[in-house]
Amino acid sequence: MSRPSDRSPDELRPVSIIRHYTRHAEGSVLISLGDTRVLCTASIDERVPPFLRHRKKGWVTAEYGMLPRSTTTRTDREAERGRRSGRSLEIQRLIGRSLRAAVDASVLGERTITVDCDVIQADGGTRTTAITGAWVALRDAVNWLLYHDLIADDPVHRAVCAVSVGVFEGQVVTDLDYAEDNRAETDMNVVMDDRGGLIEVQGTAERNPFDRDTLNRMLDHAGKACETLFASQRDALEN
Amino acid sequence: MSRPSDRSPDELRPVSIIRHYTRHAEGSVLISLGDTRVLCTASIDERVPPFLRHRKKGWVTAEYGMLPRSTTTRTDREAERGRRSGRSLEIQRLIGRSLRAAVDASVLGERTITVDCDVIQADGGTRTTAITGAWVALRDAVNWLLYHDLIADDPVHRAVCAVSVGVFEGQVVTDLDYAEDNRAETDMNVVMDDRGGLIEVQGTAERNPFDRDTLNRMLDHAGKACETLFASQRDALEN
Amino acid sequence: MSRPSDRSPDELRPVSIIRHYTRHAEGSVLISLGDTRVLCTASIDERVPPFLRHRKKGWVTAEYGMLPRSTTTRTDREAERGRRSGRSLEIQRLIGRSLRAAVDASVLGERTITVDCDVIQADGGTRTTAITGAWVALRDAVNWLLYHDLIADDPVHRAVCAVSVGVFEGQVVTDLDYAEDNRAETDMNVVMDDRGGLIEVQGTAERNPFDRDTLNRMLDHAGKACETLFASQRDALEN
Amino acid sequence: MSRPSDRSPDELRPVSIIRHYTRHAEGSVLISLGDTRVLCTASIDERVPPFLRHRKKGWVTAEYGMLPRSTTTRTDREAERGRRSGRSLEIQRLIGRSLRAAVDASVLGERTITVDCDVIQADGGTRTTAITGAWVALRDAVNWLLYHDLIADDPVHRAVCAVSVGVFEGQVVTDLDYAEDNRAETDMNVVMDDRGGLIEVQGTAERNPFDRDTLNRMLDHAGKACETLFASQRDALEN
Amino acid sequence: MSRPSDRSPDELRPVSIIRHYTRHAEGSVLISLGDTRVLCTASIDERVPPFLRHRKKGWVTAEYGMLPRSTTTRTDREAERGRRSGRSLEIQRLIGRSLRAAVDASVLGERTITVDCDVIQADGGTRTTAITGAWVALRDAVNWLLYHDLIADDPVHRAVCAVSVGVFEGQVVTDLDYAEDNRAETDMNVVMDDRGGLIEVQGTAERNPFDRDTLNRMLDHAGKACETLFASQRDALEN
Amino acid sequence: MSRPSDRSPDELRPVSIIRHYTRHAEGSVLISLGDTRVLCTASIDERVPPFLRHRKKGWVTAEYGMLPRSTTTRTDREAERGRRSGRSLEIQRLIGRSLRAAVDASVLGERTITVDCDVIQADGGTRTTAITGAWVALRDAVNWLLYHDLIADDPVHRAVCAVSVGVFEGQVVTDLDYAEDNRAETDMNVVMDDRGGLIEVQGTAERNPFDRDTLNRMLDHAGKACETLFASQRDALEN
Repeated sequence: MSRPSDRSPDELRPVSIIRHYTRHAEGSVLISLGDTRVLCTASIDERVPPFLRHRKKGWVTAEYGMLPRSTTTRTDREAERGRRSGRSLEIQRLIGRSLRAAVDASVLGERTITVDCDVIQADGGTRTTAITGAWVALRDAVNWLLYHDLIADDPVHRAVCAVSVGVFEGQVVTDLDYAEDNRAETDMNVVMDDRGGLIEVQGTAERNPFDRDTLNRMLDHAGKACETLFASQRDALEN
Repeated sequence: MSRPSDRSPDELRPVSIIRHYTRHAEGSVLISLGDTRVLCTASIDERVPPFLRHRKKGWVTAEYGMLPRSTTTRTDREAERGRRSGRSLEIQRLIGRSLRAAVDASVLGERTITVDCDVIQADGGTRTTAITGAWVALRDAVNWLLYHDLIADDPVHRAVCAVSVGVFEGQVVTDLDYAEDNRAETDMNVVMDDRGGLIEVQGTAERNPFDRDTLNRMLDHAGKACETLFASQRDALEN
Repeated sequence: MSRPSDRSPDELRPVSIIRHYTRHAEGSVLISLGDTRVLCTASIDERVPPFLRHRKKGWVTAEYGMLPRSTTTRTDREAERGRRSGRSLEIQRLIGRSLRAAVDASVLGERTITVDCDVIQADGGTRTTAITGAWVALRDAVNWLLYHDLIADDPVHRAVCAVSVGVFEGQVVTDLDYAEDNRAETDMNVVMDDRGGLIEVQGTAERNPFDRDTLNRMLDHAGKACETLFASQRDALEN
Repeated sequence: MSRPSDRSPDELRPVSIIRHYTRHAEGSVLISLGDTRVLCTASIDERVPPFLRHRKKGWVTAEYGMLPRSTTTRTDREAERGRRSGRSLEIQRLIGRSLRAAVDASVLGERTITVDCDVIQADGGTRTTAITGAWVALRDAVNWLLYHDLIADDPVHRAVCAVSVGVFEGQVVTDLDYAEDNRAETDMNVVMDDRGGLIEVQGTAERNPFDRDTLNRMLDHAGKACETLFASQRDALEN
Repeated sequence: MSRPSDRSPDELRPVSIIRHYTRHAEGSVLISLGDTRVLCTASIDERVPPFLRHRKKGWVTAEYGMLPRSTTTRTDREAERGRRSGRSLEIQRLIGRSLRAAVDASVLGERTITVDCDVIQADGGTRTTAITGAWVALRDAVNWLLYHDLIADDPVHRAVCAVSVGVFEGQVVTDLDYAEDNRAETDMNVVMDDRGGLIEVQGTAERNPFDRDTLNRMLDHAGKACETLFASQRDALEN
Repeated sequence: MSRPSDRSPDELRPVSIIRHYTRHAEGSVLISLGDTRVLCTASIDERVPPFLRHRKKGWVTAEYGMLPRSTTTRTDREAERGRRSGRSLEIQRLIGRSLRAAVDASVLGERTITVDCDVIQADGGTRTTAITGAWVALRDAVNWLLYHDLIADDPVHRAVCAVSVGVFEGQVVTDLDYAEDNRAETDMNVVMDDRGGLIEVQGTAERNPFDRDTLNRMLDHAGKACETLFASQRDALEN
């Protein structure tokens, strides 16, 4: 078997994380994973949603969108159709949960950080790439709060990244691009923290049910890939 | 540790599956898992959605809703707000994928089976309970097609059921009710087939990241619970 | 002439009123009239809508919905279409007005009771059946308020029920089922109180205009049927 | 007792029916009943809605709206809020049913007549005034079809008009204006044909239930008022 | 060349401005320009939108709509479609900006004047006709405020009117009706004040780009036409 | 007077036009004008909208959006609010008209080119920058059609670009950035073709009405700036 991209089974596509990509947001990151490119901007709002008011806690949330021609054929603009797709809502809920796992809401104070993840170009793995980039944007926005003395302690207690793994032509592979994703037997998104903990595991049998052994081998791949991604996050933050 | 319901860690709540609950639908099942009650009706439509036209394949899909006062406090009617919640869309996408895993779409012919899962009373685990009930409603609807000679072969090639498992007060438990779900450290929904295969695994760290060992113990619990649920499905279908 | 159901012209279908059908709502009633089944739940909210604020009065309102496959062929989910149908809105306005006629809003205090009427199975007469069941759910919710000493006096000053009457094949008949309703010449919904007063009369010439004599004979039928329905309400409340 | 307008109990407000009020519509009528003014335009479309296709029948329907400042205080534009109010939908369904009672759909042929009723100024009785005016607009639109030889026979087999009656300060009165409507004990809208038949009767107890005798006296008032309204329709059509 | 209406190139259609056309609004004007008729009502609300709160300034805004059969063929009701068209929103933004140019917001005080412009009959130039009529309605509403001593000084510091000009069959013409508008090479809407100042200029090349000389000749036409329109506004206000 | 950016009155910000910015679209251009950055992608669809069917003509249209944090403070996602803002619709209508002025629709054939203009970073002049970039994306998409022999002749008969001009602190200036735009007395968007023709002129008095002389001086500025922009378009297309 060979992968359409000729990568080895456990090989990630090249990662690039550009910080300060746009100038208005408190955190702004353009992340690329091969041809998948996502702009992640973190915005601070000195208010919390109604269900959290007067509880001395902050809120971290995410929104996800695709530019109409980020995809192979043009996708209708959700704003034009007047409603979000189920897929977009599902993805932004996943990103939001993943980021909240990284933050101590009571240290953040009564403010909201919204991370917008907009896909500029899609080639598979947009949701996991968004999570990896969104965490860096979140990190920068929190650094902005610390720098401006708006909070005293750092509410970010762990790094978070994500990767897709799956089974393609019978073999467990890391980081499926669109050509693989389309024909994969199993697809799994794994969100991890930088101590090896699992934050979210979402595995789907696209064709045939999978067994426990396959699940565990996919998690091995995910764990290894996340080490690389955490290194990329650290490199970006050190520059 | 003791569970709020005094159940043992791997104990499911009592299951009840009533077929032919309403009379218009080709499949109509009221499933109860403890105090969680979901009405699942399968409707046959002799058309397929536009993206499948002229491809000699059928389609199986699901919709999920909660009656406004199925919950502890009343939830606004989605129809009144004018849009579906992200949660509902995410759940109905999961139910739809799970049911499609059970069916050979080309044997089904150019028709759609829609399984509506409406929660009459919620006490945790509504999405997994819906899947278990929906499969029986689907089975009945397909039997109706076979009985009326609308299809020659049975497109349902496996049984599917689902259960929630999680970590509550440090212990892996099966089938969380609302009292547990609310305070669980980890929550995982597992969809399986009747040969032990995994169809969907969705695990979420609600408080702290979880490790591989915990994941595997949760899957042990899920596997055992699904055996009971498959037996309940079989019992219901034999009556 | 004989009715499709072989009932005599002034014969109601069998009535069943089950209280405490679900456990979260302050009032929860499953009412069946023949094959028409409606779940009516009354929810108390310690707020009033904006137009009533600071006026020391309560509010009673209703919402009406049909489960997608409560009908012969599946009806699209209103939440999915993103808007309520005119029929649903018209019906829930009627139910709300009928219930408000039973209640002294100033005795209720600044709170809202919302009665959700969800049709589980439809076979004609869903709106009138909903009113008859909703009143029992309202009664139970108010009893809950009295029992918990949240109000001192009983704001419910009359019982309310409703029935459909009409002209089918030239004859005045009581309680049209779907087979009759579809072909009726005239259709009238009558809401009454337990002292014989009329709360709402809505008569529609489906084919030919009707005369005053027919109107009065339909009201005779309605009056008689409501006596039975009030007895059913009382029986249910005594158990 | 005296009415706020000093009218006698059975006195209608002055009626004015201006035909050809705007020039594009096949039928265009400005009807005034006192200070209530409604523009009714009938538009012909050589298509029928999907549910009637290939059935060799026509369709008559109505839409109802209020200009934002037709009312005492400004009402939000429904288009701006993005949805129709329940009241508007209920009213336009009533107008549509009333007009369909006047027309033989199979003689009309496969075309739709839509009568738009837009309230320019509101002072009570807008829905009944709309029906009386809409019938004249419909009559003109059908005359246009006959004149242009698009249909051979006249599908309009009866005139239809409507009036509101009610109980105000204990007395049955005809044609309530806003000052009365606001404080009426009972409110009833009656749609009749020009042979004395009842097409729609909608009576509502606004304060206390009403009895059969009151109902019949209100119908006496309605019958008398409709005679005047039919004469106004005839006068307008003869000019 | 001759214009379809046989007017000379710089000839406006007959103007008519009827004040106090409806009775509820603080300003109510029916303006006709030939067969184009627009009802403009100005409503005062003692609140400002959220973005202006506590800034001691008022707000003037406009909404624009067309009755469904104001046009040659019936246009769907925006409320029925559930959203405003881009054209309507663009027009009401233009009307609002034009009116705000006439008013000193800080003299108006913390209140909103909303001018609703509803097209009763369309024959080209509805947006410019709406502006000319809306200013008179605004003037009357402000006079109402002055008369009732709600403001001490007059916030209206200039008159505003508008006209469409364009190029039709190679010739610059004033006030295009629908027959011309449809086939015009260039179309320009000009909003002016009564001292000859330009408030808004919107010129569009419908077929071929236009040059500076044509632009200036169109502005000559507009300037002359606005003189007539200002005279009509003054005449109406003096009666 | 000095401009906040220290530019001379007729000085454009630096222009950059990057073609082939994303890989899926037939035309994909990232245009920057100072800190304003817009991604313009042109997508070809081998269908036309319903109103053009069977007329042997093509259609060119545009959509415009802003990423939520392209602005100084975060703007709500239109898709989340469920409707487009009037501003967005107005802008995309302007872009569409401008592009259609460049194309012979009958030479294009029965296909649609949609140019999506998404603002990555906003600093004034987004709509005019979008037009300048969109024309290049359109040019590339048409070249793609020519290269693949889908059309024989070139339907693009002129280049189109746009610039904003205005009056800032009493002086006519070219290409207002956000700091100027916010405080400008007059703001004008000018769309031109490469032969000096005017395609669209939209001038708005933000504070005081402007006179004809100012209008003409603003057009002088616009003409000069467009020469530079056309040169940038040509440079980009030659590389």
